[in-house]
Amino acid sequence: MPKKLRPNERTHRVYVEGVAMGGGAPCVVQSMLNRPPDDVEANLAQIRELEQAGCEVVRMAIPRRRYLDCFEEVCKKSPLPVVADIHFDAECAIQAARRGASKLRINPGNIGGLEKCNAVIDAARAAKIPIRIGVNAGSLDQKLKDRTDLKLPEKLAQSAEDYTKYFYDHDFEDVVVSVKASDVPCAVAAYRLFSKRMPMVPLHIGITEAGTLFQGLVKSASGLGILLSEGIGDTMRISLTCDPVEEVRAEWTLLSALDLRRRTPEIISCPTCGRCQVNLIDLAQKVESKLQNVHSSAKVAVMGCVVNGPGEAQDADVGVACGDGCGMIFRHGKIIRKVDEDDIVDALMQEIGKLK
Amino acid sequence: MPKKLRPNERTHRVYVEGVAMGGGAPCVVQSMLNRPPDDVEANLAQIRELEQAGCEVVRMAIPRRRYLDCFEEVCKKSPLPVVADIHFDAECAIQAARRGASKLRINPGNIGGLEKCNAVIDAARAAKIPIRIGVNAGSLDQKLKDRTDLKLPEKLAQSAEDYTKYFYDHDFEDVVVSVKASDVPCAVAAYRLFSKRMPMVPLHIGITEAGTLFQGLVKSASGLGILLSEGIGDTMRISLTCDPVEEVRAEWTLLSALDLRRRTPEIISCPTCGRCQVNLIDLAQKVESKLQNVHSSAKVAVMGCVVNGPGEAQDADVGVACGDGCGMIFRHGKIIRKVDEDDIVDALMQEIGKLK
Repeated sequence: MPKKLRPNERTHRVYVEGVAMGGGAPCVVQSMLNRPPDDVEANLAQIRELEQAGCEVVRMAIPRRRYLDCFEEVCKKSPLPVVADIHFDAECAIQAARRGASKLRINPGNIGGLEKCNAVIDAARAAKIPIRIGVNAGSLDQKLKDRTDLKLPEKLAQSAEDYTKYFYDHDFEDVVVSVKASDVPCAVAAYRLFSKRMPMVPLHIGITEAGTLFQGLVKSASGLGILLSEGIGDTMRISLTCDPVEEVRAEWTLLSALDLRRRTPEIISCPTCGRCQVNLIDLAQKVESKLQNVHSSAKVAVMGCVVNGPGEAQDADVGVACGDGCGMIFRHGKIIRKVDEDDIVDALMQEIGKLK
Repeated sequence: MPKKLRPNERTHRVYVEGVAMGGGAPCVVQSMLNRPPDDVEANLAQIRELEQAGCEVVRMAIPRRRYLDCFEEVCKKSPLPVVADIHFDAECAIQAARRGASKLRINPGNIGGLEKCNAVIDAARAAKIPIRIGVNAGSLDQKLKDRTDLKLPEKLAQSAEDYTKYFYDHDFEDVVVSVKASDVPCAVAAYRLFSKRMPMVPLHIGITEAGTLFQGLVKSASGLGILLSEGIGDTMRISLTCDPVEEVRAEWTLLSALDLRRRTPEIISCPTCGRCQVNLIDLAQKVESKLQNVHSSAKVAVMGCVVNGPGEAQDADVGVACGDGCGMIFRHGKIIRKVDEDDIVDALMQEIGKLK
């Protein structure tokens, strides 16, 4: 096996309530609530769903000060740390810090000037919570935007560097930075640049507005995959135009694919070909859905033919190779028993149970 | 924008019928048929579907010699070059070369010994077609498998290197190589190693048995994204336990995400948050599905709010930012008109039409 990827140890460790971020901690899985900002119960219900899926930190937008009551209530009752996401209104950010936010996410460029930014820093310091400096391609400083000597990734990295230094100069180091863009090469280049210039700053990685589930998975997995494989990324959020539970599932799947963290079993399943005699797509999906609630780092194979199946899926802990109307259950490439097609899922789950 | 990725120019160019592979040619999009190997019409129908989705080369498994008649018929009528995928039976590969294959895919390790391998090489030479040497983790040579001094990626790269040299020594250079594994870090490491040792050999990249659509997209996009971003990969196949049309769609989406090749517009859509007042998921999916048949490299934004939408999606050629029951259509961040929610999709398609 290749050298195992390790979490970034160079970055400064911050804490989002009990959740360690940076400084060698495992990459933290986050998502964002999308329920109405004045509906306490709906947001709490979504938080519980996200927690169930493996989410460790949630973010909530507070678009107006009038939603602060709801935010406070959600923070009080939430089983997960809640990050307040605030644009334009420094006072709203200050209140959020005082009323239970576990972290603030602001873009210092649109919070109303440096003086107001200082007030937000002071509020976070008093509340002992970190701040994410969320720079992104869509909301760059006009001054930076107008510079013709810099390309977009350089502008993003420069903006983030300027702000981070500003925070550091104000003796506030519990900073996490993001430099997102919807263009994958641009986001990758911006993160690389920033990480090279300020290697000690923990990074929240993401591709913004990545699109629907299909395109969003491809864009996010490729962009964040490249970054994670280079040791960049202390926390991530995969943004999908989709139920946020899928974001969490995608993040875990990516961390697992890169062998950084594992939560549920990984499925090894062949793409079906002319040799396949069962409905493998259906079978693999059934197994996948059953495995969502199994906490294990096992590898489970669902293979279309007995000829290649057990051999090609040797590194699976347990698997099935399908024949005509039946399945051969195998462990580490060795067939252990034969079952009817209808019993395959149950037999696999039984074998997975025995692994623990 | 960051430096644009360029196709690999170091590799030797081969031709799969009219399709150039390697030597600076754009990364070729492939998929594999999964219809019964004796059903000419079903396979041709699938080829047409795949072609429609943008597939450039298709592969067909020939599990037994008795399917060669069907294979020959498919080759004759196929609008796309057809690759014959053959295991164990050298004679079957030789016949496939004589009966219309545009390329062979074999694993020299399981084709029945070196003498038989030579016969396959001769048949390909006579037919003037290339051969893919398809090494993978599940079917390594026993001798290599048993070596304790090498890790799996090293074994894969070593096996591919040995075979390639063997082919080169037999004056056969129209070779494409793959060193697939279902483990992403392993596959990435194997391709990197091989590419470093034999930089002139065109590579077919892929993650085997990557799983169902969801997991398969994440594993493939991360693994192949890392490779493509390093200039590795002259053709690819994303293996999904799913309709192969989705494989082609995934490949184009990945190439487009990395700005290597574009076919249909890219969607920029936000993940919805508490600010969003329309059913954005539904809207984005409708737009995405309409765009499947639009050949254009435009960027189209579908944003949930008027506050951040046009600004955050400035680099979109055209987009919509949704308000309460309405949508603001914008071009390059500037709002040009307001339409009712029900008219958003049509208005967007109209504006995309004007771009061409």
